[in-house]
Amino acid sequence: MKTLSNYLKDEDRHFRINFFNTLSGVRSVWMVGTQSKAGVKNLGLFNSLVHIGANPPLLGLIFRPHSVPRHTLENINESGLYTLNSVTSELMHLAHRTAEKFEAHEDEFELLGFTPWYFGSYPNVPAVAESPLKILLRYVEKHLIAANQTQLLVGEVIDVHIKVDAAVQSDGSIDHQILGHLAVSGLNDYYALSHLLSMSRSDD
Amino acid sequence: MKTLSNYLKDEDRHFRINFFNTLSGVRSVWMVGTQSKAGVKNLGLFNSLVHIGANPPLLGLIFRPHSVPRHTLENINESGLYTLNSVTSELMHLAHRTAEKFEAHEDEFELLGFTPWYFGSYPNVPAVAESPLKILLRYVEKHLIAANQTQLLVGEVIDVHIKVDAAVQSDGSIDHQILGHLAVSGLNDYYALSHLLSMSRSDD
Repeated sequence: MKTLSNYLKDEDRHFRINFFNTLSGVRSVWMVGTQSKAGVKNLGLFNSLVHIGANPPLLGLIFRPHSVPRHTLENINESGLYTLNSVTSELMHLAHRTAEKFEAHEDEFELLGFTPWYFGSYPNVPAVAESPLKILLRYVEKHLIAANQTQLLVGEVIDVHIKVDAAVQSDGSIDHQILGHLAVSGLNDYYALSHLLSMSRSDD
Repeated sequence: MKTLSNYLKDEDRHFRINFFNTLSGVRSVWMVGTQSKAGVKNLGLFNSLVHIGANPPLLGLIFRPHSVPRHTLENINESGLYTLNSVTSELMHLAHRTAEKFEAHEDEFELLGFTPWYFGSYPNVPAVAESPLKILLRYVEKHLIAANQTQLLVGEVIDVHIKVDAAVQSDGSIDHQILGHLAVSGLNDYYALSHLLSMSRSDD
C-alpha cells in the first residue's frame, strides 16, 4: 500500500508544495479587485474562496501570511470593500498574471489591460468588466489560523452582476458552464467544467 | 443594469438560497468519514473544503450551525480524526445520499453500500474504499464565524491514499481528471472536469 511517506520520501520542496496545493481538489478561481487610498487599482488571484452561508450571504477568503497579494489585504483593511471577478478560458492567461508581483503604485488593470467596472454607488472599488460574474463584498470579520498564520477573511455580498441572465436558472442556481467559468487545482492547473446534472433539491 | 435586487426581488426563499449557494462557483466534493465512540461509522457530504497551507499540510472544513452532518462534527470532537473521500461520476448518486438525515445508530457505510477502508495504524476512522483519493486528517483548531455561527474546522493531513499512481504528476501535482473527480456548485449541481492546461510554475 502506497501512503504519504511513499509519495513524499526523498522528494524536493516543490514536489511537496504542488502535492499538497492540489490535494484538496479543484475550486473556483477569482480575481479580487481593490483600490488603495491613493486610488491605485489592484487585482490579485485567489482560489481559496469558501461559501460560509446564504442568509446573510457570506463568503470567506484565505490569505497566506506573506503571500503575493498583500496589496489586496491592505486595501481591504483600508476600504472594507472588495470585488470578486470570475475567470473564463478567454481571460485565463491574463488573469493568471494577476498573481505576479507588482509594485504598490502599479495599476494592474492598466498594466494587464482589464477594463475597470463599477457597481452603481461604489466608485472606489473596481470590478473587472470582462468577467461574466462580479461580486461586491463588504468586510465582516477575520480569523487568524494559529497553525500557520493564515487569515480567513469573511465578507458579506452587497451586490452581484451577471453578464448572461440565462445563467440564472429558474430555481435561482447559477450555471457556471453557461458563464464559461474555469476551476483551478493548486495555483496552476486550470480545468474546464461540464454541467453533468442537478440532483433533486428536496433536501434543501 | 441588472443587480442583486433585480435577481432577488419578489423571489422565494428557495430561489435566494440556491442563488447564494451557487454564487461562489464550483468546489470539490467529499464524503467525510468518521466513527463514534460506540463504533458507528458515519459519512457526511461536504463541499466546503478549503486549502489552508502546504507546510504543514492543513485543510479547512466549514460546518453549518444546525446542518445535517452534525454526527460528523460530534465524532471529530470525540476522536480528533476524520477522512476525506473523493467523489466520481460512478459514486455520485450514492455519495449524494450521504447528505440525507440518518439516525445516530445507523451505519451509513452499510446502509448505502460503501466499503470501509482503513489507514494502517488508524483502525477507528473509516475511509471509503471506492473513492480514488482518501485523506486522513487530525483535528488542529476551530474558529466560530460570529456573523452566522458556522464553524471553520482546521485539520492536518496525516496520510493520503491515491488509487492511481499516474494521477501524481512528476512535479507532485495531482491530476483530478485522471482520478475522475467531480466538482459541485451549491448542494446539487455536479460538474465534470477537463484538465485544460498547467501554467508555468516559475512563480511558486
